[in-house]
Amino acid sequence: MSSTHGPDPVVAVLTAEGEPLPPGLEPLFEIAQVRHADDLTSLRGALTDARVLMVTDFRTGLLDEAWSSAEHLEWIHATSAGVDAVLIEPVRNSDIPVTNARGIFDRTIAEYVIGAITLFAKDFLRSFDLQRERRWQHRDTERVAGQRVLVVGAGSIGRQIARLCRAMGLNVDGMASRERPGDDDFGSIHASGGLLEVVGDYDFVVIAAPLTEGTRGLFDRRAFRAMQRSARLINIGRGPIVVTDDLVTALGDGSIAGAALDVFEEEPLPPDHPLWTAPNTMLTAHMAGDFIGWKAALSEQFIANFSRWRDGQALFNIVDKQRGYVPPDQE
Amino acid sequence: MSSTHGPDPVVAVLTAEGEPLPPGLEPLFEIAQVRHADDLTSLRGALTDARVLMVTDFRTGLLDEAWSSAEHLEWIHATSAGVDAVLIEPVRNSDIPVTNARGIFDRTIAEYVIGAITLFAKDFLRSFDLQRERRWQHRDTERVAGQRVLVVGAGSIGRQIARLCRAMGLNVDGMASRERPGDDDFGSIHASGGLLEVVGDYDFVVIAAPLTEGTRGLFDRRAFRAMQRSARLINIGRGPIVVTDDLVTALGDGSIAGAALDVFEEEPLPPDHPLWTAPNTMLTAHMAGDFIGWKAALSEQFIANFSRWRDGQALFNIVDKQRGYVPPDQE
Repeated sequence: MSSTHGPDPVVAVLTAEGEPLPPGLEPLFEIAQVRHADDLTSLRGALTDARVLMVTDFRTGLLDEAWSSAEHLEWIHATSAGVDAVLIEPVRNSDIPVTNARGIFDRTIAEYVIGAITLFAKDFLRSFDLQRERRWQHRDTERVAGQRVLVVGAGSIGRQIARLCRAMGLNVDGMASRERPGDDDFGSIHASGGLLEVVGDYDFVVIAAPLTEGTRGLFDRRAFRAMQRSARLINIGRGPIVVTDDLVTALGDGSIAGAALDVFEEEPLPPDHPLWTAPNTMLTAHMAGDFIGWKAALSEQFIANFSRWRDGQALFNIVDKQRGYVPPDQE
Repeated sequence: MSSTHGPDPVVAVLTAEGEPLPPGLEPLFEIAQVRHADDLTSLRGALTDARVLMVTDFRTGLLDEAWSSAEHLEWIHATSAGVDAVLIEPVRNSDIPVTNARGIFDRTIAEYVIGAITLFAKDFLRSFDLQRERRWQHRDTERVAGQRVLVVGAGSIGRQIARLCRAMGLNVDGMASRERPGDDDFGSIHASGGLLEVVGDYDFVVIAAPLTEGTRGLFDRRAFRAMQRSARLINIGRGPIVVTDDLVTALGDGSIAGAALDVFEEEPLPPDHPLWTAPNTMLTAHMAGDFIGWKAALSEQFIANFSRWRDGQALFNIVDKQRGYVPPDQE
């Protein structure tokens, strides 16, 4: 696959337009020829002799357009957990392995989810409104312990969410593409095909799934109607797993009681979008997992995998390109 | 002390003015003569032959005024964790035992503290401001795991806070009136006399102490100056443990980075108070522990203790009236 002899291999690094190379890549300069690309022209040029492509811009459509230049590509790494943006048709149909940033964001995303659950349980959104009005108003609020949460997506992020939820005393079930027995993290693991039958059992529903053909549009009007009217939705997975118009309707008519959303069908969310003012809703800018220092942590992870590749060892975090995520048996 | 023969004992129940008897007291009507008091006149009348007093209004000054009528009182129960309001001079100097609601609010207060810590770490306050302005702005935020928290007050509430903080990956130390060895909940337990020497080591400082002569005004200008400029204060204990004017100054000049406050020197907080608009501050209306159903839970706890008293058994949750709280050896 590769060799430690000969010239250093060429690594193309695709960033968003105008963005510099990510921090922490410096050690790579000693062992690879790094070509920075941030638009179609530079990506085509970099791909011409690149054996490795590192993609840091998960909103890009450039890869599809530049693909014909990628004649020597042996490996694509995405510095994100979701790899939907790089799993374009020619990549899926090729032998080129795709790896991702599995693991890096698990803990911080789980912390965000705990923040959102406690925010809803303790009615902090109402407290902020009252605070702006300088109004003292006592309310009784919810216990967190004993509430039921469904984590849609039983990968490494979903599992970390489950662990912190259990530590906080919540009852946790999971949902995956196929039904599986419960384990240390999940009481039960339902099949996503049965969403409508089980989703009404939960106080919180957390979307931590990859965007695949099986999850696209999974949360639509029927799903929101099947949820409890007191339930809240938390989406830290991918925007298109939710039918946004149906969510806006469900929040407006009280089919569900609130939402915390970090990802959206359209990002950035346009200023005139009705979600900005939906009731009982918290919006954040696709940042749930992005802890201070995350870019350097991603570079370190890529370099660790690159060293394995250069030495002819097996890569870690290899995505199943048909399923769209790193399968659980790689854990 | 008491007898199961003879007429049912008289129990006076003091509520806030105009408030009904708390829910869940119904079983008491079978075994006691319940006298409801909600002002000075009714309290004097009820105390005339009451052997037991249940105080549900922790803002009252009525007890002091009505005390001369309490000639037959054998026991006072406060349906709160903090008992500062009932520990008036004649009560402290009497043989009458005082019990409290220790245990009821531990878990929900700890959940509130986790909500506040994650709120700060994930920069939710800024997210709400941006949301109102319909602005999409990505930020890198803090990990929760690995941060350091000092819990001032190592009683049952402080311990439950420590447990949930540890479950979330924080490093937790405690502070008590006297230095003690660390244990399963706290890495170290400092003496409150050494606050200024150690408080600068922490990212979060949580006040979970009773209001006593040792804690009144403990958090003053010197304490805020000794804290890290990046640190946040969370107060779910009692308002007068903090010198409010010094806190307003510290938040305004950046001596500390934020506060979550559930208790205040003056409650309700007056509409013109500067804390309402202090930067990076969340205010709630003395409700951190008040879960849905808390009043019935308090009644149930009192009735359990009342049954012990009636049967001549030892009361639980007996306050050390000189120290102002239930000492740890009753755990």
